[in-house]
Amino acid sequence: MVETIVSGEILRTIARAIVALVSECRIHFLSKGLHSRAVDPSNVAMVIVDVPKDSIESYRVDVEKTIGVDINRIFEISKTIGSKDLVEVSILDETSLRIKFGSVEYNIALIDPSAIRKEPKIPELNLPAKIVLDAGEFKKAISATEKISENVVLKSDKHGFTIEAKGDIERITFTMTGSELIEFNGGEARSMFSIDYLREFCKVAGAGDLLTISLGTNYPGRFSFELVGGKVRVEYILAPRVES
Amino acid sequence: MVETIVSGEILRTIARAIVALVSECRIHFLSKGLHSRAVDPSNVAMVIVDVPKDSIESYRVDVEKTIGVDINRIFEISKTIGSKDLVEVSILDETSLRIKFGSVEYNIALIDPSAIRKEPKIPELNLPAKIVLDAGEFKKAISATEKISENVVLKSDKHGFTIEAKGDIERITFTMTGSELIEFNGGEARSMFSIDYLREFCKVAGAGDLLTISLGTNYPGRFSFELVGGKVRVEYILAPRVES
Amino acid sequence: MVETIVSGEILRTIARAIVALVSECRIHFLSKGLHSRAVDPSNVAMVIVDVPKDSIESYRVDVEKTIGVDINRIFEISKTIGSKDLVEVSILDETSLRIKFGSVEYNIALIDPSAIRKEPKIPELNLPAKIVLDAGEFKKAISATEKISENVVLKSDKHGFTIEAKGDIERITFTMTGSELIEFNGGEARSMFSIDYLREFCKVAGAGDLLTISLGTNYPGRFSFELVGGKVRVEYILAPRVES
Repeated sequence: MVETIVSGEILRTIARAIVALVSECRIHFLSKGLHSRAVDPSNVAMVIVDVPKDSIESYRVDVEKTIGVDINRIFEISKTIGSKDLVEVSILDETSLRIKFGSVEYNIALIDPSAIRKEPKIPELNLPAKIVLDAGEFKKAISATEKISENVVLKSDKHGFTIEAKGDIERITFTMTGSELIEFNGGEARSMFSIDYLREFCKVAGAGDLLTISLGTNYPGRFSFELVGGKVRVEYILAPRVES
Repeated sequence: MVETIVSGEILRTIARAIVALVSECRIHFLSKGLHSRAVDPSNVAMVIVDVPKDSIESYRVDVEKTIGVDINRIFEISKTIGSKDLVEVSILDETSLRIKFGSVEYNIALIDPSAIRKEPKIPELNLPAKIVLDAGEFKKAISATEKISENVVLKSDKHGFTIEAKGDIERITFTMTGSELIEFNGGEARSMFSIDYLREFCKVAGAGDLLTISLGTNYPGRFSFELVGGKVRVEYILAPRVES
Repeated sequence: MVETIVSGEILRTIARAIVALVSECRIHFLSKGLHSRAVDPSNVAMVIVDVPKDSIESYRVDVEKTIGVDINRIFEISKTIGSKDLVEVSILDETSLRIKFGSVEYNIALIDPSAIRKEPKIPELNLPAKIVLDAGEFKKAISATEKISENVVLKSDKHGFTIEAKGDIERITFTMTGSELIEFNGGEARSMFSIDYLREFCKVAGAGDLLTISLGTNYPGRFSFELVGGKVRVEYILAPRVES
């Protein structure tokens, strides 16, 4: 039996992070907290979500449990809940998830976890460049580039961190020097990524949330968000595109 | 001759209540106040609107008068008027309605009342259950159910009032006990209704408005809204759907 | 070489004024300030934009310069800039315009000015009626008329200024007497104009902006907006429609 109480904001953050890539997923109620990961249907991006049990208002898990859920539907429901509202999320039998807040109770059929695509192994990546910045800044930059291109080049060297996009008749460049970044190691890196994916990742975050970007050269990038005041950790790993 | 002055909010409330069901209607300027009623084209729902003359800023009706109007158009116009703005609504001849506020004056052709569908008789209903609640709460519940079903079951018994909807893979239940309701007689009732209609009814109201629901079993329900601080009374009667 | 610094609001206002009529235009960096004018593809309306150099934070123009630009794209970019943000707008070579603010830099290819439609001569108009009013009031009136007609009659005589539109079953009349207008000479005039154009013109302005309308009878009208606290002057000249 699993009985938890979380805030509306945490439930929404978890669901939004995952729907960026898949509509069904497995969720693990581990003794140390909640965990989920999934790869998108094109095998281009992976999401890893971790919520330690200390971030959860009340977390009672007798035996560790894995369920399959329609995460899209849970995201829709979570949007109707106030950020500070407390929500009971429970599994009382093998067939349904109960989400209860205020006077309303949802009972949602579970999906057999074995019917959901196998979870990915988390790759070990050796990434020389590390950039820490406000997620809101990154979001604004990505949203500007999407008007003119499908791809964006992320670049790091001792001078700073650069986001670059090229359209048919224009070019956009965002430049942040080390002193304008929250943390920066000046490592050398340059990789091109799909703007569509980056924009999906950014939806989970807002101004004030911390984003750590780890980059190599023509290599996958890691985008780690610290959300809900550090209570929820969402990490995306994204395959690079080949520059022509 | 009819010369009245109403607030923008009252004009908009009257118009919105009626457009939920029909686009043309009769309006009666009676000596005791304004009255209108209509049945929707599918004969499933009836709306009854009453505004006593004391709710109206200025109400001069020499001889009682019935007009036919394009209520849709009046609703559109009313949306451009501030809630507290005073509006002159007058009938100066047999052909047009004049709506005047600030520096703007609308003259709208009247419709021959005999060309508008006959008005319904208001049925006498013996409804055992009476539930009084905040219209905003009911609105939120209906808006949650519409995502998963076309129908909703409203249920009352000594334990409380319940709103229930069933989708293919989930179920939503709203439960309010007697102490959570503004007024409740614990009467036994259970009827199923179309969510589309209930959602249309709710558009007229917001948080803070009083809604009185009267129910029977597999029987029409009555939904009475007290609007604009009690100045406007809007009542809907809705036929039940048969549960399969 | 041209190097200027303007506020986001001024850049957006210039761009929005011009996109109302064309998507590409010439911009002249004159020693006295910035100037642009264009006629829409149907030859019905003309826009004239003037920003004196004193309205511009910093204005360094060594040699007067004319460029061709995709003004649509500049408008899109300007919408992402805060009103009070300072923007560097520079021409460093013959091929591109640089727009730089905060950490972002756009480089946009210029268009050969000779490939853009020839600029109109500004006609001399002898217009007997002059009406000065709040642009927000005019905007509201035009937005109300667009629901019922394609054309609007603007009328002036000693009694005041009137905006009139007729639909199939209704008529709207806005009336402002001399004392309700900011300035009014009571001149006799009556011309009909396309609502589509007037609505486009109004987008550039808001409540608090000054609009001067100059009218004749069945004659072009002039609509002059004082924007951004008088720093930007946008004038539209619009051909009349023939009343049937």
